Amino acid sequence: MLIVMQPQSSEEKIQKVISFIKERGFEAHVSNGADHTVIGAVGRKVIDKRDIELLDGVSEVIRISSPYKLVSRVFKPEDTIIDVKGVKFGGNYIGMIAGPCSVETYDQVDATAKKLAEAGVRVLRGGAFKPRTSPYAFQGLGEEGLKILKEVADKYNMAVTSEVMEVNQIPMFLKYVDILQVGARNMQNFNLLKALGEIKKPVLLKRGLSATVEELLMSAEYIMAGGNREVILCERGIRTFEHITRNTLDVSAIPVVQKISHLPIVVDPSHATGLRDKVAPMSKASVAAGANGLIIEVHNSPETALCDGAQSLCPEEFSVLFNDLKAFATIMKKSF
Amino acid sequence: MLIVMQPQSSEEKIQKVISFIKERGFEAHVSNGADHTVIGAVGRKVIDKRDIELLDGVSEVIRISSPYKLVSRVFKPEDTIIDVKGVKFGGNYIGMIAGPCSVETYDQVDATAKKLAEAGVRVLRGGAFKPRTSPYAFQGLGEEGLKILKEVADKYNMAVTSEVMEVNQIPMFLKYVDILQVGARNMQNFNLLKALGEIKKPVLLKRGLSATVEELLMSAEYIMAGGNREVILCERGIRTFEHITRNTLDVSAIPVVQKISHLPIVVDPSHATGLRDKVAPMSKASVAAGANGLIIEVHNSPETALCDGAQSLCPEEFSVLFNDLKAFATIMKKSF
Amino acid sequence: MLIVMQPQSSEEKIQKVISFIKERGFEAHVSNGADHTVIGAVGRKVIDKRDIELLDGVSEVIRISSPYKLVSRVFKPEDTIIDVKGVKFGGNYIGMIAGPCSVETYDQVDATAKKLAEAGVRVLRGGAFKPRTSPYAFQGLGEEGLKILKEVADKYNMAVTSEVMEVNQIPMFLKYVDILQVGARNMQNFNLLKALGEIKKPVLLKRGLSATVEELLMSAEYIMAGGNREVILCERGIRTFEHITRNTLDVSAIPVVQKISHLPIVVDPSHATGLRDKVAPMSKASVAAGANGLIIEVHNSPETALCDGAQSLCPEEFSVLFNDLKAFATIMKKSF
Amino acid sequence: MLIVMQPQSSEEKIQKVISFIKERGFEAHVSNGADHTVIGAVGRKVIDKRDIELLDGVSEVIRISSPYKLVSRVFKPEDTIIDVKGVKFGGNYIGMIAGPCSVETYDQVDATAKKLAEAGVRVLRGGAFKPRTSPYAFQGLGEEGLKILKEVADKYNMAVTSEVMEVNQIPMFLKYVDILQVGARNMQNFNLLKALGEIKKPVLLKRGLSATVEELLMSAEYIMAGGNREVILCERGIRTFEHITRNTLDVSAIPVVQKISHLPIVVDPSHATGLRDKVAPMSKASVAAGANGLIIEVHNSPETALCDGAQSLCPEEFSVLFNDLKAFATIMKKSF
Repeated sequence: MLIVMQPQSSEEKIQKVISFIKERGFEAHVSNGADHTVIGAVGRKVIDKRDIELLDGVSEVIRISSPYKLVSRVFKPEDTIIDVKGVKFGGNYIGMIAGPCSVETYDQVDATAKKLAEAGVRVLRGGAFKPRTSPYAFQGLGEEGLKILKEVADKYNMAVTSEVMEVNQIPMFLKYVDILQVGARNMQNFNLLKALGEIKKPVLLKRGLSATVEELLMSAEYIMAGGNREVILCERGIRTFEHITRNTLDVSAIPVVQKISHLPIVVDPSHATGLRDKVAPMSKASVAAGANGLIIEVHNSPETALCDGAQSLCPEEFSVLFNDLKAFATIMKKSF
Repeated sequence: MLIVMQPQSSEEKIQKVISFIKERGFEAHVSNGADHTVIGAVGRKVIDKRDIELLDGVSEVIRISSPYKLVSRVFKPEDTIIDVKGVKFGGNYIGMIAGPCSVETYDQVDATAKKLAEAGVRVLRGGAFKPRTSPYAFQGLGEEGLKILKEVADKYNMAVTSEVMEVNQIPMFLKYVDILQVGARNMQNFNLLKALGEIKKPVLLKRGLSATVEELLMSAEYIMAGGNREVILCERGIRTFEHITRNTLDVSAIPVVQKISHLPIVVDPSHATGLRDKVAPMSKASVAAGANGLIIEVHNSPETALCDGAQSLCPEEFSVLFNDLKAFATIMKKSF
Repeated sequence: MLIVMQPQSSEEKIQKVISFIKERGFEAHVSNGADHTVIGAVGRKVIDKRDIELLDGVSEVIRISSPYKLVSRVFKPEDTIIDVKGVKFGGNYIGMIAGPCSVETYDQVDATAKKLAEAGVRVLRGGAFKPRTSPYAFQGLGEEGLKILKEVADKYNMAVTSEVMEVNQIPMFLKYVDILQVGARNMQNFNLLKALGEIKKPVLLKRGLSATVEELLMSAEYIMAGGNREVILCERGIRTFEHITRNTLDVSAIPVVQKISHLPIVVDPSHATGLRDKVAPMSKASVAAGANGLIIEVHNSPETALCDGAQSLCPEEFSVLFNDLKAFATIMKKSF
Repeated sequence: MLIVMQPQSSEEKIQKVISFIKERGFEAHVSNGADHTVIGAVGRKVIDKRDIELLDGVSEVIRISSPYKLVSRVFKPEDTIIDVKGVKFGGNYIGMIAGPCSVETYDQVDATAKKLAEAGVRVLRGGAFKPRTSPYAFQGLGEEGLKILKEVADKYNMAVTSEVMEVNQIPMFLKYVDILQVGARNMQNFNLLKALGEIKKPVLLKRGLSATVEELLMSAEYIMAGGNREVILCERGIRTFEHITRNTLDVSAIPVVQKISHLPIVVDPSHATGLRDKVAPMSKASVAAGANGLIIEVHNSPETALCDGAQSLCPEEFSVLFNDLKAFATIMKKSF
């Protein structure tokens, strides 16, 4: 941490700042410039830098060490590769996850999964507990939905991912799913993150609608700090002033995350754009930008879907897209 | 709901849309304009409008009835006034809540509360469970913190509010606090909202960092739909590109909410700005814009606070501010 | 400027950075911490800090001196008070500007100005050249509009302000107006700013829809650097994800600007909210937050206005508001 | 335009609205629903819908025809292909533009252009007039810079594009450049747009930092309405809360624009990200999402560039990238 004093600060003020940080367990290194005296505070403690900014004579406090540890490439330089029943996310592997937004009936999931399996998809997604803005909207089938997902996935030899919304749902999820998904609205539900740090299954952590990349990484840090090292990050669009698309997919978050962190990052183009005809171009863009996976909504009959049909592909559209994506992956020297 | 067909849509396409909405429980009223045929869909069901937009020939679908019911002035035209141990929020009453960001020790809370009580504050705030971005930062004293809050509040005849983070903490909170607070990061933690709909104490619901006013009201709708009619809304700043202040306090949300909803809205200038010297001007602005209450951080010794000291007032600053605010309230024909 | 080296950077890399900054006219002061070596670069040259970030071994570059000079309180500690025909903006004076969005006819401006003068307003606003999003919308009366404004203002002994859109309109504006207004869309039209730096009349500079406070101040710096020291800043709402109001009025920008700069800051609640019934609460909030002035749209017949009638007050509403504002000003120890 | 009346509006109010719109040249079509009466207003006039929202009994006014005409695919269904000295933008053609941020010296431009020409680039970019946030930063070489650009471009048989900042610079630009560029800060400089509508050379129009796609298209409409049909749109990043990248490249704007408009859209990944190592992934993402062109900063010696060196590629990096992009283009069934 660097503490920049105001120009011409008195020696007394400088000493008061030095005492303050020493009391809190930091060492102080003073450097006198032409205008500004700069005090380097060296130590491992966590301190709110604004507390120092309050001290007399302090102009600015600058954090120079990054707040994340376990998620950082400094901690682990090589890519983390997460293997889910043989499907790999990370490094030169691109994982594909697909399935309906919500689990509605066994037949619906079965019909969709059959086509996806034929197309080569090996991880099935589907919502059983749905975070809906309105209390009057369809809230999901609950545990019954998870059972359907698992039964169908087993039939086609697929893995399963679904969104967990609360700490006390975790044991139930562990019975049915292979990847526990944390939704954008729960990215900073710290109790949930801590509890997921203690399980032994991968977590797919979605970026919050207004979360910075740094905050996404800090939420992953919560999970890793608990002992669970298998976190898949997910970019799913951020909230901006542009309203033709539901959110703005931040494609540049892919290389940004990959530079800072060793964790894999996948993209959800369906929720990001909210528009079926934008899913294909944004999937291609994500692979071209280096994404380690995709999670795409596919519904056997989007026109009758109970939720988000407007952003779901039909299985035929998905198959065409998946083939295109494999060609892109090849240029990227990666493979699905 | 109005369904606008593309110019020159065939009669066949129009009939297909009509069948689609009738199957979903809506009546259809067709109106032929010069260019566009418009179909009015009348009904009470919830439907994702994008599902209709997918149909052939549909240009646009426009929702005309508002999504909220119980929170709306249509449902209840007169202001809701919430009484917490004699302190009123709503109508011509402005409620004042103050206290430290985090509960640290009994002595700290006692020293602060004593001064606040002398200044006339009758609702004490304080965090016992803290949602912190970093897993390595101070996470609060937990139940011990709630106990301290209640003990001190009883001593000075004050009510208590504190942030609840999870469904299974609710019974514990009911023992100690008078208003259960939902933090910005949990505004769309729908399980928590549903559970708070079943209790009999007021809930203070903070707006999420990137939540629209409509979403804030929909989250309040979750609580009210469960049977709890005592919801206090709270504006606490939204995330924008401006970074000198921590967030941008959306002062206009006050009259916006008050036009749509009968619920009281209070303002948290401390978290919104993150800067001690901006708390006073933004508190005054909030009262002048019609706020029904304020929630302000006050710490007996901000320089040694474990959390957010940089945005806390000392008790003397608070007293001066509270007097100014009373003068503003008088012009507004309101009272604290 | 502080250059933070990566942990364990070699002496060779450190020397290369030092050479680099010395070649560009800076002095270097080296400070060795436990982990990081920090190089202080002292000098007055302008340099893109990212150029240094590119150098081998550099972790981060931190600017510590502020980019603005003439607008800063460091340059001029006391408030700048700008006097326009006896109406003062700045210090303890609050200036009131009111008038129609667009000049439509002599009679319209005359009817509005008569009522405003009776209410005590002494600066008349009105658009003659209108920046409209659509090329097919009403573009203003041009010079004819300026003539009407001046004629009416002279009749009621008022000053005039109107928006200038282009460098070559400046001589024309100097004939008719007392304050030249720069619109939000032109806040970074640097040619226009430079040209306005050479005139001898006050400039009212509106904040761009997505401009930071720092950028607003840098644009004011352009004008001041040219020799014109009379700049009135104007907060008029920023673009966010919230869409009930047209823009989000950043009320906290008032105390933020006043801390950094000596220039007066006024608020335009009409354009910020775009909603007539939000103008009064946001005007009050602005005065309560310390604004040095207001610019409010008033139209003698808002329902037939050619432009932005929806956000204009009628003269009677304005009179009531102005009286309320005077009461708020008194508490603020200021006067209109 | 659809005017939705409040539930149970009186016949008198309905008639008053009908009269209001008829007086303004619209036809009225009334449709009575269960709750709401809806009035369809049919006509070609431009009217501010908020003026109608002010009328008694009106709940909401909904625009159903789009505000743009000439830029729309309704007006011209097939892709516009713009040919600049044989380089095509639009349809299945991807145009590549590259060059230094600023023109510094003849030798610098010559060295860069030579390498670009060898790599197959045939349109050279370079700034001669620079819009800089600070009045103290390098402002460009002016006309001398344009001369250098043209001289070098002629030598290597390239076309030239450069940013024009003001109406009165246009005649000068017409002497030297083949595409006139409008910068993000001038996207709503309507005087400049009108003047560019009257020239006979292509215009490259950059999206403003906080402009919606609709506003970008409306600005293009200004140019087209003047008679100039050769407009190339450019996505260059929007302002969001994320700050690791300078702006957030809105990749989804590519398919969004292409659905609504026939105009080509190119991407500027250099200014959007502001980071050299993000230029390659975002260029690939843009081509994969369907972009009709790219504009990339390349500098023969980025470390000594006077402006934005931090985001410029060196010629070797560019060559490798260009080859990769050609492979992506092939999968997209397009060609450079």
